[in-house]
Amino acid sequence: MRKTSAELAALVQGRLEGDPSLIITGVAGLREAQPGHVSFLDHPRYAPLLATTQASLALVTHGIKPPDGMSVIRVENPSVAFGKIIALVTPALPPHKPGIHPSAIVDPSASVHASASIQPFAVIEAKARVGANTLIGQGCHLGVEASVGDDCFFYPHVVIRERCLIGNRVILHPGAVIGSDGFGYDFVDGRFQKVPQVGIVRIDDDVEIGANTTVDRGRFGSTWIKRGVKIDNLVQIAHNVIIDENTAIAAQAGISGSTVIGKHVRIAGQAGTVGHITIGDGAILGAQSGVNHDVPNGQFVFGYPAQEHKEAMKTHAHIRRLPHLVERIRKLEKQIERLGGKVDI
Amino acid sequence: MRKTSAELAALVQGRLEGDPSLIITGVAGLREAQPGHVSFLDHPRYAPLLATTQASLALVTHGIKPPDGMSVIRVENPSVAFGKIIALVTPALPPHKPGIHPSAIVDPSASVHASASIQPFAVIEAKARVGANTLIGQGCHLGVEASVGDDCFFYPHVVIRERCLIGNRVILHPGAVIGSDGFGYDFVDGRFQKVPQVGIVRIDDDVEIGANTTVDRGRFGSTWIKRGVKIDNLVQIAHNVIIDENTAIAAQAGISGSTVIGKHVRIAGQAGTVGHITIGDGAILGAQSGVNHDVPNGQFVFGYPAQEHKEAMKTHAHIRRLPHLVERIRKLEKQIERLGGKVDI
Amino acid sequence: MRKTSAELAALVQGRLEGDPSLIITGVAGLREAQPGHVSFLDHPRYAPLLATTQASLALVTHGIKPPDGMSVIRVENPSVAFGKIIALVTPALPPHKPGIHPSAIVDPSASVHASASIQPFAVIEAKARVGANTLIGQGCHLGVEASVGDDCFFYPHVVIRERCLIGNRVILHPGAVIGSDGFGYDFVDGRFQKVPQVGIVRIDDDVEIGANTTVDRGRFGSTWIKRGVKIDNLVQIAHNVIIDENTAIAAQAGISGSTVIGKHVRIAGQAGTVGHITIGDGAILGAQSGVNHDVPNGQFVFGYPAQEHKEAMKTHAHIRRLPHLVERIRKLEKQIERLGGKVDI
Repeated sequence: MRKTSAELAALVQGRLEGDPSLIITGVAGLREAQPGHVSFLDHPRYAPLLATTQASLALVTHGIKPPDGMSVIRVENPSVAFGKIIALVTPALPPHKPGIHPSAIVDPSASVHASASIQPFAVIEAKARVGANTLIGQGCHLGVEASVGDDCFFYPHVVIRERCLIGNRVILHPGAVIGSDGFGYDFVDGRFQKVPQVGIVRIDDDVEIGANTTVDRGRFGSTWIKRGVKIDNLVQIAHNVIIDENTAIAAQAGISGSTVIGKHVRIAGQAGTVGHITIGDGAILGAQSGVNHDVPNGQFVFGYPAQEHKEAMKTHAHIRRLPHLVERIRKLEKQIERLGGKVDI
Repeated sequence: MRKTSAELAALVQGRLEGDPSLIITGVAGLREAQPGHVSFLDHPRYAPLLATTQASLALVTHGIKPPDGMSVIRVENPSVAFGKIIALVTPALPPHKPGIHPSAIVDPSASVHASASIQPFAVIEAKARVGANTLIGQGCHLGVEASVGDDCFFYPHVVIRERCLIGNRVILHPGAVIGSDGFGYDFVDGRFQKVPQVGIVRIDDDVEIGANTTVDRGRFGSTWIKRGVKIDNLVQIAHNVIIDENTAIAAQAGISGSTVIGKHVRIAGQAGTVGHITIGDGAILGAQSGVNHDVPNGQFVFGYPAQEHKEAMKTHAHIRRLPHLVERIRKLEKQIERLGGKVDI
Repeated sequence: MRKTSAELAALVQGRLEGDPSLIITGVAGLREAQPGHVSFLDHPRYAPLLATTQASLALVTHGIKPPDGMSVIRVENPSVAFGKIIALVTPALPPHKPGIHPSAIVDPSASVHASASIQPFAVIEAKARVGANTLIGQGCHLGVEASVGDDCFFYPHVVIRERCLIGNRVILHPGAVIGSDGFGYDFVDGRFQKVPQVGIVRIDDDVEIGANTTVDRGRFGSTWIKRGVKIDNLVQIAHNVIIDENTAIAAQAGISGSTVIGKHVRIAGQAGTVGHITIGDGAILGAQSGVNHDVPNGQFVFGYPAQEHKEAMKTHAHIRRLPHLVERIRKLEKQIERLGGKVDI
């Protein structure tokens, strides 16, 4: 890359404050940046890094005061703007050719759009469907009657089991498993007897699911992941869970069977919920929290077992003060004895 | 589906209470059911749903009183009975053809039963063995001298490493890894030196293992999963663990090395154990619990670190009452001062 | 195996104490050993097993006193010495032939060393590089411009996405995913907008990564796993994490984005860290701990939220004594009343 600061300001439609003729040759985070690099301030809490960074130019939002002499470009959303500059310096991958690789195995009754790209060693079973411009990666498996919409991108080794329905613009990372059997058994005569899992998984438009994440099919009916939901790596979504639009779930979280999660919920890493509960719209589940009851709309819960966040913080503060509390009780006991009371402990 | 309530009662060998001529056209959960659907009551705690469901017919166990006018079929185990009705309405998948797909690679020294089905891109290495009616899914890997019994079903991308022994009627879901190296190193001269992991994994009859679950081989000897054990998705079983018959382990739980787990144990989601401990027969490990000591037969433990469940519940109740406790101490201090004592805090 | 105790002592360069003519026919752990077996004492805490084992011979370190009449071989490190004996009794796997299996697909612009072994159904994309003596397992995927050094071993279904750089002697277990997109979105107009993840993963020499573990590529720059790091199964390493040399991370742990982990750190199973923190050299994170702040060099932390380990132990002791504390307060209240104070609770 070799752009002037003025050219970059024009690219991101921002307001340059400083030298318009700086030559920018690379991009980096504030900590790693070298002279000649452009960087960005993602969050006001990192503002002190502006004083120590070696970056020549930084994208910042309104209200941030840069150190004297530092050139900045002001934009509404520095992260989004920085993305445009990154796109400039990222060499494009070679485009995937449309068509079915000769090593892939596509059942004659399957329907694959002419613009789709079926990569080596993929298997597409009977009556499955692949939409326009969708890429099915190396070794992926599409089961009988599975349906995948347009503009999807499946990385290698994704498994979609029979009859699952995937919308448009869905991204599935390597090793994601969609439609595995739910974990259900009847305990009969001292043994587990498998409960048939004959439902499906339905994934709506604009969903992204991380590497090695697993989404179980419904026992009957559907496990349903609605439009715009984003799920990280190694997450477990059990049978008949419903996740409403634009919810985000971080790595290694687990949602137990039949739990219903609202819109715009944020679930942090390694959090877990029991089954058959409801998480309200806009709720937040803190990292590693263990949620065993319904959570109302907009509530932030934390802890194990999870409490409303402020309550949880109070609880933890009390716990940390326990040694002090014991000391106070000890003094009270002494005073009681001094006053003639008896404390026989 | 189009069956009368009387026909369904006959199918599940239950006692119909209500209209024998209802026409039933579908199956659904109590919450999702529409008129014309049959549903079932899985657990008495959901009995209130009978009053609000739109289902025309429900399978219930003995002692449950349905709302006036609702037709029910009484059975011993509604979940098992419902399974029979679901089977009725689920279109069968096309059967898998026996034989070795031309794209699969089977070593000449391997032994594959004529009735087994080896799916595309599977690899079966030297001296490995596949029993009767077993299906080895797309892209599966059977290492040198691995042995798989009869009537097994391996979904795509299952990896069985060398010498592991799999019994009969074992189901392995996509991406399950059996026989990966245990995590063992000697720390020598400031570096980790790999400890050879030359044991195997032995999996007995009627075991089911979930998607992307990992089971490490023994350092020497075996990691051993006994008859009827059921393991969910994304579970970690470390080297030399022994799990006795009919134990169930939910998603994302982790069992550390050389721990021994009894029969009929239930381990809930995201629970973990340290290594080298013993979990007694019939024990229950609560969700997310962290178990760092032996658990006696039949004990229910919960929490982090895990305590006996009732103790853990008491502990949590005490923790939640801490603000109240502080208030009591404050009052005591005031009274002490009023009585002439000194509280210098 | 059929060796005398004297021969085994010579093999491991240890000092035999006892009968030099014992015939040893097998190896096993102390608990499982039968007469005729050699075993070893891994840690002094298991010393009582020496009294009950049926092993005929045991490797022990200095200072351990065996029961009367038991033959032992004294060595510096019994685990390392036992590894040499195990190697003796483990039948070698057939060597992998160098060369590219006819079913593998290697782009003409890729570079594969003549001594490398490319297993069936692997795909090596444009300009990717594979070094000497490296094995690329069944179904593995090497993306565009990915580079893999010498003497690596990739088990089946490993995915290395474009441009990632892997050093020498790196072992990747089945299903490991290297270079998946980081979990990053800008929230714009009520929807998530994907933040491009255009960095790479860099893995240095002598790293080992477990089955189904996921390592995300940097948003820009690198996620960097340095020399000698060992990572267990089902671990999540988020984008732009840096892990310094000789650190070990146990199963199901998760490291959030941009966190920096020092040298010789030990992270136990199911532990998690928030993003953007620093874990000092030699620190230890206890099992299931939830770390939300920097950890100084050498500090052992435990708990959720994590505290310094001794503090955490004190905290837990206080928590367990809460019922006792409540009892003391009740007595104080009685005494206050007896002394004429008022306690209106």
